[in-house]
Amino acid sequence: MPFWQVFAPENAFTDEDKEALAESITSMYTDFVNLPKFYVVVSYHMQPPNSTYVGGKPANNFVRILVDHIARRIVDQPELQALCMQIIETKIAPWVRDRGFDWEVHVDETPQELWRTQGLTPPAAGSDGERLWAEKNRAVPYDVVAAS
Amino acid sequence: MPFWQVFAPENAFTDEDKEALAESITSMYTDFVNLPKFYVVVSYHMQPPNSTYVGGKPANNFVRILVDHIARRIVDQPELQALCMQIIETKIAPWVRDRGFDWEVHVDETPQELWRTQGLTPPAAGSDGERLWAEKNRAVPYDVVAAS
Amino acid sequence: MPFWQVFAPENAFTDEDKEALAESITSMYTDFVNLPKFYVVVSYHMQPPNSTYVGGKPANNFVRILVDHIARRIVDQPELQALCMQIIETKIAPWVRDRGFDWEVHVDETPQELWRTQGLTPPAAGSDGERLWAEKNRAVPYDVVAAS
Repeated sequence: MPFWQVFAPENAFTDEDKEALAESITSMYTDFVNLPKFYVVVSYHMQPPNSTYVGGKPANNFVRILVDHIARRIVDQPELQALCMQIIETKIAPWVRDRGFDWEVHVDETPQELWRTQGLTPPAAGSDGERLWAEKNRAVPYDVVAAS
Repeated sequence: MPFWQVFAPENAFTDEDKEALAESITSMYTDFVNLPKFYVVVSYHMQPPNSTYVGGKPANNFVRILVDHIARRIVDQPELQALCMQIIETKIAPWVRDRGFDWEVHVDETPQELWRTQGLTPPAAGSDGERLWAEKNRAVPYDVVAAS
Repeated sequence: MPFWQVFAPENAFTDEDKEALAESITSMYTDFVNLPKFYVVVSYHMQPPNSTYVGGKPANNFVRILVDHIARRIVDQPELQALCMQIIETKIAPWVRDRGFDWEVHVDETPQELWRTQGLTPPAAGSDGERLWAEKNRAVPYDVVAAS
């Protein structure tokens, strides 16, 4: 969590671009929510021409971003939702809007209980365990009781 | 919204097929719900052999369709849900069933509040803003107050 | 249902591996929930290097698994949720953990009413119709009334 899927034209981004964009996305979650860095997974699908159609027409200058949020939920919190989307737009703008791509983003929220990383149950939001994972930047065994 | 992902064998569809199927899918949302055409995004994943397995066996004649609905929700409306699925089946049949593919479709509904297109908050369902976007067939600034 | 997407490095799995892992995943649903085998669809996305980034860095030894559950829901059943994730981990371990990959899994639950296979409405959970589909291992017309 979060899991980002970026669908883009096959030559839209160099490896350096992909890393810089992934770092920008990651910074959103570490700066605002204190998530462990390694929680943020960005998967690029660099697609050949005529893979994506918008309104029934080929869209070969289009970036479509699909995000699953797992570790934090902001359902029914309109101000947080608007802020979240605003931050996403700011974080992606240099690689998407500023390069002249068309784009669209949507986020889904999936159940925190149905999520494991390295086979481990992630610690509760804001817990000592989560802070430990953030500090180590990897999934390590933690004291569930102390961390809750 | 909606965002369709079509997983198909790599030679299942020509570019002409992909465009015609995307147009058929788009017509469902413009004819029945008056959505702006450009809301409808179809992303094709043309997969090499042995990419998809059904019941543990390679399924190289199988089309799997995954749809995210964002702009409209029909949870707890069984008649609308059945109608929606029936229309989907009708719209895809000429390229899927009628060509002898096996197939499966499912739809998820994701939060409307966590969605932006071209960096803009889409207008409310059925609003003047949405009608403006439909008429222009693109995201343009709109009067949020007048449109609500 | 269920629909598994496995994102893996392009040479992580042979065709034999993919089939064996898909069979292992399938066994989870047939052994524990008596689902028809053909309900279980596994789609592999074998990705070139520098497709996935974890914490902003290229993750070329990483397997990311995304699962949609449709036919059964276990929201608000913490024990079943924990059991489900434990079984998933056990079923994938020989191809993922035991081979030294890093990995992460999450499951979403999507509306059962918005799902069709071969154009048919799947029978109710635990119904005679579902048992018939399991026995035939394919979608066949069934008696909705008798099956409910």
